[in-house]
Amino acid sequence: MSPGHTGQAAGQAAQAKLPIAGVKHLIAVGSGKGGVGKTTVAVNLAIALARMGHKTGLMDADVYGPNVPLMMGTNQAPAAIGERIQPLQNFGVKLMSMGFLSPGDKPLVWRGPMLHSVIQQFLRGVDWGALDYLVIDLPPGTGDVQLSLMQTAPVTGAVVVTTPSDVALEDARKAVRMFEQVKVPILGIVENMSYLTCPHCNERIDVFSTGGGRRTAAAMGVNFLGALPLDPHVRIGGDTGKPIATFGPDDKRAHAYYEIAQLVMKRADEAAEVKGPTITVSD
Amino acid sequence: MSPGHTGQAAGQAAQAKLPIAGVKHLIAVGSGKGGVGKTTVAVNLAIALARMGHKTGLMDADVYGPNVPLMMGTNQAPAAIGERIQPLQNFGVKLMSMGFLSPGDKPLVWRGPMLHSVIQQFLRGVDWGALDYLVIDLPPGTGDVQLSLMQTAPVTGAVVVTTPSDVALEDARKAVRMFEQVKVPILGIVENMSYLTCPHCNERIDVFSTGGGRRTAAAMGVNFLGALPLDPHVRIGGDTGKPIATFGPDDKRAHAYYEIAQLVMKRADEAAEVKGPTITVSD
Repeated sequence: MSPGHTGQAAGQAAQAKLPIAGVKHLIAVGSGKGGVGKTTVAVNLAIALARMGHKTGLMDADVYGPNVPLMMGTNQAPAAIGERIQPLQNFGVKLMSMGFLSPGDKPLVWRGPMLHSVIQQFLRGVDWGALDYLVIDLPPGTGDVQLSLMQTAPVTGAVVVTTPSDVALEDARKAVRMFEQVKVPILGIVENMSYLTCPHCNERIDVFSTGGGRRTAAAMGVNFLGALPLDPHVRIGGDTGKPIATFGPDDKRAHAYYEIAQLVMKRADEAAEVKGPTITVSD
Repeated sequence: MSPGHTGQAAGQAAQAKLPIAGVKHLIAVGSGKGGVGKTTVAVNLAIALARMGHKTGLMDADVYGPNVPLMMGTNQAPAAIGERIQPLQNFGVKLMSMGFLSPGDKPLVWRGPMLHSVIQQFLRGVDWGALDYLVIDLPPGTGDVQLSLMQTAPVTGAVVVTTPSDVALEDARKAVRMFEQVKVPILGIVENMSYLTCPHCNERIDVFSTGGGRRTAAAMGVNFLGALPLDPHVRIGGDTGKPIATFGPDDKRAHAYYEIAQLVMKRADEAAEVKGPTITVSD
């Protein structure tokens, strides 16, 4: 048993990454571990960017567990014009998800090559139009889908979401290393479920420990984007299709997401500058 | 875009599943979504079974995010005798994990075929010896690894772990359907992070909602195995390599895991009976 590591992957990443016509920044939101709130961060980040006046799209690349439709309160079949799939839209954000194409409880039990094909369709077969930001909600982990995307899409940078628990941090470090090895800049780490404020006595509870996201970012030399509390209201917002960021930047619970969105915009501009001018091919 | 569903997978599941010599019950622990506590349940279930006097093994099939070594407090390189890998052991449980072979922060960025090969090595290339229960910690979701395992391993039955949040339940239903479609009996659903008791005021907080696991089990006609609280002590047990079940069945926090283990044993015997006698091939 001598399986290869990411050396091969890093080599392949040097292949040409075709730009997506009209899309300025591609922001990948990933995590080493599932259930840390990656989709919650992606959804609220996209809504915050749109509310701040930017043309924004959200592509749900978590084809096995597409939670974006439920969280965004939208679940219709997308139309097609000719061969081009038309994205849905809610809260000012253009949307595409496997959940729109395969709703209900049926699991997708797919092999790798089928996944690659769907992801490419989502990236290049959807009429995204002109976008300032296309946020991609990656599946958790460091597997096939993530690798294919990073190798074929001109990703501006990645946001890594983690909780402060040691098992989540262990996996978050792997996610950071994966992005580094495929030459995708890390825009920063978000610590989600950082603490819970008891709704009965207002005392603070460190359910999943606390502070590990900031410490891990410092130790790995990457930016820290902020800590988000574990807040039942945020979960309810996601479960009911009314994400907390829709309440706007002045809402005390939504505010932190707007701060993170500001930092993501800043880091994305920096990352794009380092890479040099974007070459945009349009028809 | 017309990707196939699980019809093909279900057909392939009818292929011969070679028994694993000496292993009586293969218990798969899965989840539709990551971060719901699947590994926590698998680890504590295995320890409880071992403490109750059963020969038990735990195979970590979550090759991309192997958290079993950290939770089980073991991280050595396994020895090999000839071609046979020797499992590690802690708390009376025999262990194998990708984390033992590839420790540290390096992510595995593997394609499907390499995964299949590793999983088969773990199942059949490890000297598990005589076991009453081999608990398999599946990766979250309904992807390649899960499909390969269900198609090639004689799994007695599956435990599906979920939280009560709607997004987790949405994915849990997919996991149940996946197991059904590949003809693996569902031993039952566990609702994890069911509620939190505030350590300051002892009031109950329904962080991720509550009761959805039991309702989903009833709606889908599968057993409900129990509800486990969201308890910082359980998380600390996992983060420090001393899982809560090591405190024994009389510990008030560990007790629920022993009750779930009892139910799993009962359901596994029932599932094995329905399938008829096991044919064991030994050399």
